[in-house]
Amino acid sequence: MACDLCASVGGELLWQDARLRVVHVEEAGYPGYCRVIWKQHVREMTDLAQADRNHCMNTVFAVEAVLRELMAPDKVNIASLGNFTPHVHWHVIARFRDDAHFPQSVWGERQRAGRRAAPQDMPARIARALAARLASAHST
Amino acid sequence: MACDLCASVGGELLWQDARLRVVHVEEAGYPGYCRVIWKQHVREMTDLAQADRNHCMNTVFAVEAVLRELMAPDKVNIASLGNFTPHVHWHVIARFRDDAHFPQSVWGERQRAGRRAAPQDMPARIARALAARLASAHST
Repeated sequence: MACDLCASVGGELLWQDARLRVVHVEEAGYPGYCRVIWKQHVREMTDLAQADRNHCMNTVFAVEAVLRELMAPDKVNIASLGNFTPHVHWHVIARFRDDAHFPQSVWGERQRAGRRAAPQDMPARIARALAARLASAHST
Repeated sequence: MACDLCASVGGELLWQDARLRVVHVEEAGYPGYCRVIWKQHVREMTDLAQADRNHCMNTVFAVEAVLRELMAPDKVNIASLGNFTPHVHWHVIARFRDDAHFPQSVWGERQRAGRRAAPQDMPARIARALAARLASAHST
């Protein structure tokens, strides 16, 4: 069975190493929407070895830190669902009180138009900040 | 401002230590719905020290492992949102193809009646399996 995250990058590539990649997701009204995608096709986090789980979560939290630093969101939402695409990937989303779904999840009912503008180079800014942060981080 | 997770346990208590608690959430049709709640009122995961973050995620993944062991779900959903209650807590949810929202998130549109029965003592079973697993785990 074809898996979207095995077949394609799944967004604009911001950072990667041998085990995972971070992409920026093009989602109208959500300029701070990233995904951390494990490269190997693995279904659940507990299918990964402890060191790989730690590396994955450290990267997720590096993305959270960068989104906070660059965008000062009202809240960060983090989720690993995979009901449609059972291949480990984490959504890391900067949320704002005036965005389209707040305080609902982005998978919930839309609350308002709430299209939030952001500098066009936001993905590039996130990529730079992430590279700086992850270059100095221990990976396990 | 009053915080629900500071003021109350937030579910049926399954396990706790000095830093966090695991509760079972009473949600119709979702017998495998747990939350890992950080005890201190902290907004985002990146407000926690690295060792605390690790402890929190190790507990989240212990809950995932126990839900898989006891219920063999089609998918496990994990999320830290906090738009309503900005106090670090993780939803860990056993999902099944015939549940009320699958493949949507539990915060999405209901797909069917999908009330799934489970043994009445499921919370007690989860509590026992979790205690066994966390007793033997390193906490950082």
